[in-house]
Amino acid sequence: MVQVMHNRGFNFGAGPAMLPESILQEAQEALLNWRETGMSVLEVGHRTDIFRALLDEAEADLRQLLNVPQNYRILFLGGAARLQFDAIPINFLSEKEEGGYLVTGIWSDLAYQEANKLKQAYCIANASDNGFTNIPSQSYWHLRDQTKYFFYTPNETINGIRFPKLPPTNGIPLVADMTSCLLTEPLNVNDYALIFAGAQKNIANAGLTLVIISDEFMELIGDKIPTMLDYRTHSRARSTYATPPTFNCYLAAKMFQWLKKLGGVEAMGKLNHQKAKTLYDYIDKSDVYLTKVVKEMRSLVNVCFSLAVPSQEKRFLQEAESQGLLSLKGHAKVGGLRASLYNAMPLEGVDRLVCFMKEFAKSL
Amino acid sequence: MVQVMHNRGFNFGAGPAMLPESILQEAQEALLNWRETGMSVLEVGHRTDIFRALLDEAEADLRQLLNVPQNYRILFLGGAARLQFDAIPINFLSEKEEGGYLVTGIWSDLAYQEANKLKQAYCIANASDNGFTNIPSQSYWHLRDQTKYFFYTPNETINGIRFPKLPPTNGIPLVADMTSCLLTEPLNVNDYALIFAGAQKNIANAGLTLVIISDEFMELIGDKIPTMLDYRTHSRARSTYATPPTFNCYLAAKMFQWLKKLGGVEAMGKLNHQKAKTLYDYIDKSDVYLTKVVKEMRSLVNVCFSLAVPSQEKRFLQEAESQGLLSLKGHAKVGGLRASLYNAMPLEGVDRLVCFMKEFAKSL
Repeated sequence: MVQVMHNRGFNFGAGPAMLPESILQEAQEALLNWRETGMSVLEVGHRTDIFRALLDEAEADLRQLLNVPQNYRILFLGGAARLQFDAIPINFLSEKEEGGYLVTGIWSDLAYQEANKLKQAYCIANASDNGFTNIPSQSYWHLRDQTKYFFYTPNETINGIRFPKLPPTNGIPLVADMTSCLLTEPLNVNDYALIFAGAQKNIANAGLTLVIISDEFMELIGDKIPTMLDYRTHSRARSTYATPPTFNCYLAAKMFQWLKKLGGVEAMGKLNHQKAKTLYDYIDKSDVYLTKVVKEMRSLVNVCFSLAVPSQEKRFLQEAESQGLLSLKGHAKVGGLRASLYNAMPLEGVDRLVCFMKEFAKSL
Repeated sequence: MVQVMHNRGFNFGAGPAMLPESILQEAQEALLNWRETGMSVLEVGHRTDIFRALLDEAEADLRQLLNVPQNYRILFLGGAARLQFDAIPINFLSEKEEGGYLVTGIWSDLAYQEANKLKQAYCIANASDNGFTNIPSQSYWHLRDQTKYFFYTPNETINGIRFPKLPPTNGIPLVADMTSCLLTEPLNVNDYALIFAGAQKNIANAGLTLVIISDEFMELIGDKIPTMLDYRTHSRARSTYATPPTFNCYLAAKMFQWLKKLGGVEAMGKLNHQKAKTLYDYIDKSDVYLTKVVKEMRSLVNVCFSLAVPSQEKRFLQEAESQGLLSLKGHAKVGGLRASLYNAMPLEGVDRLVCFMKEFAKSL
């Protein structure tokens, strides 16, 4: 009933992505007078008690959701996750040190290129030869002993590829760009030295980046780091050294509460596996749709596929949109189609998509 | 009627600050289904035609409002303005070059200290001796010939101090932190090489920083600049190199349209002078309230004052709040009281504040 009234579609965009309607409705109310403060949530100062309480609550909820150990800090930073491609080498690599990058898609490649431009970085392995449709077996990796950190991207949004298990790092601190997968399935934070994630997929709207970093790893930060890029700055100031993106933090707090109510990351992981299986199973048995990604490496949340006859794509996208199945176009760099199935996408949305795909296939 | 219904107060906070209620109401509607896209404005992709059109419109409106010449770029960047304290020296200072900083308040002092930490910087003048209540006369300035840029803060938010006119720079490119004053009165963009402003005072909600930069100044940017800090990156990509803070951009677009309807920056400047005069005139003739800032240098938008008997402050703040006059506490670093009168604060709010201040004075 509510859905019909607002005429909202199912948004399969890769980010900024779909948000739960219940949270959008709460945000609507908070937009004029938040919690009887007489102010919009957009207007509340970041140094007020009420905002501090919100941020503390968000942090505590995230800590609980991911079972973040006490020797890790959680930072709510302004700006896009891509700033971390600069911040990581700048914080951790001195002139003689180098970072290792496992390049398994367009995003990890960009992270590697940026580190290489600023400092010293090398590829542990590079999967561009196979068009980023597979993750190179460990026997092809070249991991140097003195590597300062091991950078990888557990889920590649553009290529739809996912690490099915943790990469072995020989004790080298592991850094992960979890922009598209944080909170979509369980993980063990202790396995990582630093995790970062842009908010616009599973956390909030665009403009916030979460960082989870161990105290031990922070001790390796060098000198004369630009203060706004220095993780210690934001750790000491508990994310309010500068004005944080307050509304994004508000939405993140709501999202964490919503996740907790739905059973947390374990329940969400199961649902995400079910959603992905529903779509991949249909693609695999269809002659009209195909996906190039090796089965074991397929992303849970970014299902990249294409039509056997690519010239039909335009009509596919138009007809899907007319049925409220939105933003199914693949990334410009790879083309094709992509259905992003982040936490806020209900199973119903995936069922409706498969139903449409079947109808479209029949019409060819 | 609407105000009573929502029970919204007048928010004198220094930022995040008050926003026009009409814009908040429009944003409420856009939060579930924006322009019949079937998506929330929070969910719309940054590479969609509709978002590109929004950003182009916002840019065109700002260009018109400030009469920004064609050889200047307008950038919509994610994150807090404070990141520019790093970005400016990193972009423009090579090892042998130095930036000059005119230190007239806490913010310009922080900008200076940051530049000095990363590169070479010096103080053109430093007004800390007078507690930042006056701007040193030009005869006390030391401006070196080879200075790469001249940095200043036309309005100091914490100290409530404002440059009444443009500082002479002997042809050195002028860089201005206009976080609290952009769009509050007319300016000549041609006088500047780079202007930046955090959004949370006069532009939108927290999480967006505007940069206006000349093509000529961009040619002076060095090599191997971290890509996300390099102004050329965002200029080439027209502010969508990374995911921008899309909702903040939406609000900025609305704010620019609102300003145009109200007569633009000229009309706003007149109103802001009237608002400030109303409050300062009362403070000057009162024995109960005082301000230390030299008359000619007083901020239009951050009126810093105190009670002659400081122990009354707590009661002042409590009673003000009970009357819907909110966030009047001064910055923690200087104490006292502060009324921020940005563009969204109507004259009525100032009248109500003065009325309350009179009543409070009588009650002592």
